[in-house]
Amino acid sequence: MKKEVKVFAPASVANVAVGYDILGFALERPGDEIIVRFADHEGLQISKITGDNGKLPYEVQKNTAGFAAQCLLEHLGETKRGIEMEIHKKMPFGSGLGSSAASSAAGVWAVNELLGTPLSKREVLHFAVLGEQIADGAYHADNVAPALLGGMVLIRNNKELDVHQLPVPDGLVASVVYPHIKILTKDARGVLSPNLPLPKMIQQCGNLAGMIIGLYQSDFSLIGRSLKDVVIEPQRAQLIPPFYEVKKAALAAGALGCSISGAGPSIFALSQGREKAEHVAQAMAQVFNNHQIPVEEFVSSVNQSGAIKI
Amino acid sequence: MKKEVKVFAPASVANVAVGYDILGFALERPGDEIIVRFADHEGLQISKITGDNGKLPYEVQKNTAGFAAQCLLEHLGETKRGIEMEIHKKMPFGSGLGSSAASSAAGVWAVNELLGTPLSKREVLHFAVLGEQIADGAYHADNVAPALLGGMVLIRNNKELDVHQLPVPDGLVASVVYPHIKILTKDARGVLSPNLPLPKMIQQCGNLAGMIIGLYQSDFSLIGRSLKDVVIEPQRAQLIPPFYEVKKAALAAGALGCSISGAGPSIFALSQGREKAEHVAQAMAQVFNNHQIPVEEFVSSVNQSGAIKI
Repeated sequence: MKKEVKVFAPASVANVAVGYDILGFALERPGDEIIVRFADHEGLQISKITGDNGKLPYEVQKNTAGFAAQCLLEHLGETKRGIEMEIHKKMPFGSGLGSSAASSAAGVWAVNELLGTPLSKREVLHFAVLGEQIADGAYHADNVAPALLGGMVLIRNNKELDVHQLPVPDGLVASVVYPHIKILTKDARGVLSPNLPLPKMIQQCGNLAGMIIGLYQSDFSLIGRSLKDVVIEPQRAQLIPPFYEVKKAALAAGALGCSISGAGPSIFALSQGREKAEHVAQAMAQVFNNHQIPVEEFVSSVNQSGAIKI
Repeated sequence: MKKEVKVFAPASVANVAVGYDILGFALERPGDEIIVRFADHEGLQISKITGDNGKLPYEVQKNTAGFAAQCLLEHLGETKRGIEMEIHKKMPFGSGLGSSAASSAAGVWAVNELLGTPLSKREVLHFAVLGEQIADGAYHADNVAPALLGGMVLIRNNKELDVHQLPVPDGLVASVVYPHIKILTKDARGVLSPNLPLPKMIQQCGNLAGMIIGLYQSDFSLIGRSLKDVVIEPQRAQLIPPFYEVKKAALAAGALGCSISGAGPSIFALSQGREKAEHVAQAMAQVFNNHQIPVEEFVSSVNQSGAIKI
């Protein structure tokens, strides 16, 4: 049997209230699995896709995971290598949980592992972002970087891929609720005003800085005071009708903070301790249930592994 | 002779390129000196002001240092105490170096020391900010907090005075050049657009985050990449005609970054090592000299003491 590698890459929460387009963290689960193996045909081919309800293209150039892997193979001068790729989607699309980023990170890391790990995660990040760009249209790493590298990741500059893994205090746990509401990323971007008032920038900068200091100092109270999005959340909340009710329930249940995950509709909260986070997730889910909206819940520490061979 | 206390409080650089209204650091010098002593009259009186060319009012309610001290005395229920205050301005007004903040911090700390230090620096900060408000019109702490507490200070929220001293890597040295050009803070604020494009906020946030991470990690290269103001500096540079020439000279001389100090006209740079910082200061001063603009230069580590009894 030909050499084969199976890689898991996790879902992620981007923006994290205070870092629109520049902050994200990885979840333990859900995530996507990608299997790659050497094959007799020439070049990369996608042989199987599951869990996508037939929505994803088999054409390498149009598939997030395929394109990312192809870009890596081109960089390595290995485009003639016969490689077969299976994509097993194990997380929802359009959820605001970085589904395409997980596929892209898994695809590129699986191929890199198959070839004997010629490059580091930092070195393949660019190719994973290129894959994500197929799905999202923009070259940005706030989901891809955490999905690939793991951790809470700050991207100083997306174009330069100047990425930094931030310390995460023990006991910081995320509650994520994905309601079955459809929001397209482009719609979520469409509601955003192209401008904002200067005082809002000052508040947002202060909160971002407070969040980073809170992470470095393991200061949960400061993290809580800082987890406030005064720019993006007020504009996007309308896309998730019970958003403020869910947020209120999360905070009442003891969450440090609560906001929209990525472009939504998933909502995340951060809490101190797993028990609190479980309680918060239930409280958030309950609100959606009261509105007859089915949800999936995830309670997760920040995943420090990112894409990983399993 | 009645008990007497002499306090020095330093100049400071606010904004620091990436933290408009929320970041500032204290310089070793220049700064103001304030002497307070018990007196036979009732209440606080200003008995002497030097170094101000007659510009500062003797009326306590209208004087930055006097008003700050008076607010503290009211809080302590000590308004009947006979206290005499001498203010020795030893730094330029309207320089963008936090002159009024230094006076306010020195005034409030001197009185607190005279009374046997009933409160901590954190506890008197509010009163020092009230003093600064007399001069500046706004309740903000980006000069006052460093002048009082020392260090590189991030103010998450000015209203809440949620202030945090950031770590400063060994060898981070500031070069400051004060050109004899007049800019009023209200004019410097007047040139600012009330709005900004969202992509500029994203860049500014990324750079602020990079700066904070750079400080925590002692990563001078990251500090250098981050020290870029894409929002305020481009709007204010016009107020200091040779600004871009000065900045270019600073960077050519090896500075990590260079921008406007507070509302200007002073310009600061940060460098790795004192020798480099001296060289940078000379290069900056030279540009102003070429334009026949007289300057004062200061080369300084970040002052970790803030207001201090001398």
